[in-house]
Amino acid sequence: MNREQPTNAPRSKLLFTPGPLTTSRAVKAAMLVDVGSRDDEFIAVVREIRTQLLEIGGVSQAAGYEAVLLQGSGTFGIESVLSSAVPPSGKLLLLVNGAYGERMVQIANRHRLTVDVLRWPEDQVTDPAAVQRRLAENAGITHLAVVHCETTTGIVNPVEEIAKLVRAAGATFIVDAMSSFGGIPLSVSAAEIDFLVSSANKCIEGVPGFTFVLARKKALASCEGNARTVSLDLFEQWRGLETNGQFRFTPPTHALLAFAQALSELKAEGGVPGRAKRYRANHAALLAGMKRLGFRAYLAPEHQSWIITAFHYPDHPAFRFEEFYRQLAARGMVIYPGKLGKVACFRIGNIGRLTPTDIQDLLHAVEDVLSVMGIRKQEAQATV
Amino acid sequence: MNREQPTNAPRSKLLFTPGPLTTSRAVKAAMLVDVGSRDDEFIAVVREIRTQLLEIGGVSQAAGYEAVLLQGSGTFGIESVLSSAVPPSGKLLLLVNGAYGERMVQIANRHRLTVDVLRWPEDQVTDPAAVQRRLAENAGITHLAVVHCETTTGIVNPVEEIAKLVRAAGATFIVDAMSSFGGIPLSVSAAEIDFLVSSANKCIEGVPGFTFVLARKKALASCEGNARTVSLDLFEQWRGLETNGQFRFTPPTHALLAFAQALSELKAEGGVPGRAKRYRANHAALLAGMKRLGFRAYLAPEHQSWIITAFHYPDHPAFRFEEFYRQLAARGMVIYPGKLGKVACFRIGNIGRLTPTDIQDLLHAVEDVLSVMGIRKQEAQATV
Repeated sequence: MNREQPTNAPRSKLLFTPGPLTTSRAVKAAMLVDVGSRDDEFIAVVREIRTQLLEIGGVSQAAGYEAVLLQGSGTFGIESVLSSAVPPSGKLLLLVNGAYGERMVQIANRHRLTVDVLRWPEDQVTDPAAVQRRLAENAGITHLAVVHCETTTGIVNPVEEIAKLVRAAGATFIVDAMSSFGGIPLSVSAAEIDFLVSSANKCIEGVPGFTFVLARKKALASCEGNARTVSLDLFEQWRGLETNGQFRFTPPTHALLAFAQALSELKAEGGVPGRAKRYRANHAALLAGMKRLGFRAYLAPEHQSWIITAFHYPDHPAFRFEEFYRQLAARGMVIYPGKLGKVACFRIGNIGRLTPTDIQDLLHAVEDVLSVMGIRKQEAQATV
Repeated sequence: MNREQPTNAPRSKLLFTPGPLTTSRAVKAAMLVDVGSRDDEFIAVVREIRTQLLEIGGVSQAAGYEAVLLQGSGTFGIESVLSSAVPPSGKLLLLVNGAYGERMVQIANRHRLTVDVLRWPEDQVTDPAAVQRRLAENAGITHLAVVHCETTTGIVNPVEEIAKLVRAAGATFIVDAMSSFGGIPLSVSAAEIDFLVSSANKCIEGVPGFTFVLARKKALASCEGNARTVSLDLFEQWRGLETNGQFRFTPPTHALLAFAQALSELKAEGGVPGRAKRYRANHAALLAGMKRLGFRAYLAPEHQSWIITAFHYPDHPAFRFEEFYRQLAARGMVIYPGKLGKVACFRIGNIGRLTPTDIQDLLHAVEDVLSVMGIRKQEAQATV
């Protein structure tokens, strides 16, 4: 533990979650400064963050793209885009195969958007053929939104294939890339994405406090006057940043300083390919180790991302998730509960400042806890 | 400078602004930990913050009050309350004497609430007699909202007097106490406030990242089903916190850890009276010193709070605010531009981790800059 920490404050644990994540010491140390939110030095930091986010998405201002930062969690970013991009006359097609797709449905309904929804089971990808049929039979779809990597399961949806269909239909393409941006290579221009949403505390490995939107400038400009709220008005937020480089309302200055440091660490790691390589290694180590301990992954391997993995509960009468979780937490390891409708699963994330060594530490702790809980390795394996 | 800070990152300056503010070293150091947003230790921190916020407002859960925390800036909190509390059949009276009152008008209009607005010049308080007349002549007012301390000017509105009129009219009382809560004594129960909104980075001296609402439980319960958004749904945010102690969506964990430390420092300073005493001393030192340097305060002394002070530009041809600002910033002092419609003013805040010694440092810097800019002390005084 570091010396500055008050003794009664929570200890840092290793976070095997979808975020907030384990971040580097330097990312957190960047927050040891108070800056004025309208001061030139801070404005320069914000400008540089916006430029680098576009670079990570494989685009640039010169190529007609913009990055907009907004206070709040990723959901705030999604709500900002849906409630700013879809005009009263628009019709939004939502592709849903998990909780974050369902959240978009909830947001669209709350704003009384005209919505059409295509649903798949949580272990199936959003099938491009079905999307093509729906676009053909349901005339007037103006916007389509899909989740790139569903944090519910870790499934990766075929964004690039869907993009082609959306473009052919002349619609606007919205991608929730919350848990994938920076960790799974994706070109915003190649995938012809109009709005991509992600968050500070995901694969860029910053701390939570803001969300961001990469957008085609033309799509962004067409949002003018659509917004149903003031705080989440994407167009006005962009205009504010463009006019004087400032957030319209108080930004989380410390989280932004941390993010600037996180971006430089991403670059040092070799950008998205470098980071993806580490996450992939984490995931491979996790999958092999959990299999050895008798756990079954929820998804078929061909659908599984290296971001987060859902595992079935072991089929053993002594298994209680709450105790499993608490015993791991007591050993300094935080895992994540499941979010599936019908299947009993828990989740383990591979993102954040984690290496295969950390994964090995987790696996040892899991083995230890299984033994403490009276679930012997052999018995757990028997359920596979 | 501390050793952990990367050399190319912004330096800490003294922030004489309405926030983000200068915070203590320990508040920032509390952010050097990554915690899981659904982990028990973090849930305990959130619970304790909610309890202590009620204490600061002079109320408690037992007395029928609740504290709700929400991601984003203070404006997000205001929009959350207005768009959650006022039902479609409601009618909202807004009292406006500055930019933050106008922002409430903008938010109410964006959500198409039925609104009535009473306006005063920016140097006048929201007059209770006029409010009483309007309540009498405009039947059906269900909600009334006012800003306690208008950050535009630093003016303090007579919340307690207005409260009585609102209660007599049987309406719901909403107070924007953004820049006053924790720095100006105000009892939520004595002032019969139904919803009070403030923010982490104001007089509690935390870092920015979230806003909070203190609410009468009955008023909060009556919000169910009203919200126009998902992210800013005050009722659902409360229900989430009550159900499992968690934010519905990713909270700014580091900002919350910092806030817990800030709350303990507020207690150590003697609570709100202790903090108000220091801010008052800052303000007295500032006012005396600026007067000596030839500056005139915008407000009459009887309306002026000790939170922030607006000063007229000196009536000297060599004065350029941008240069004045930059020269002070180069000396490590950040002041704030004006936000008045017609009068050329700048602002200096007294809140945050600042003492009268810091104010003296600022005054010396101001004197130095005036001399560098060719505005001699004597000349500036001649304009008074």
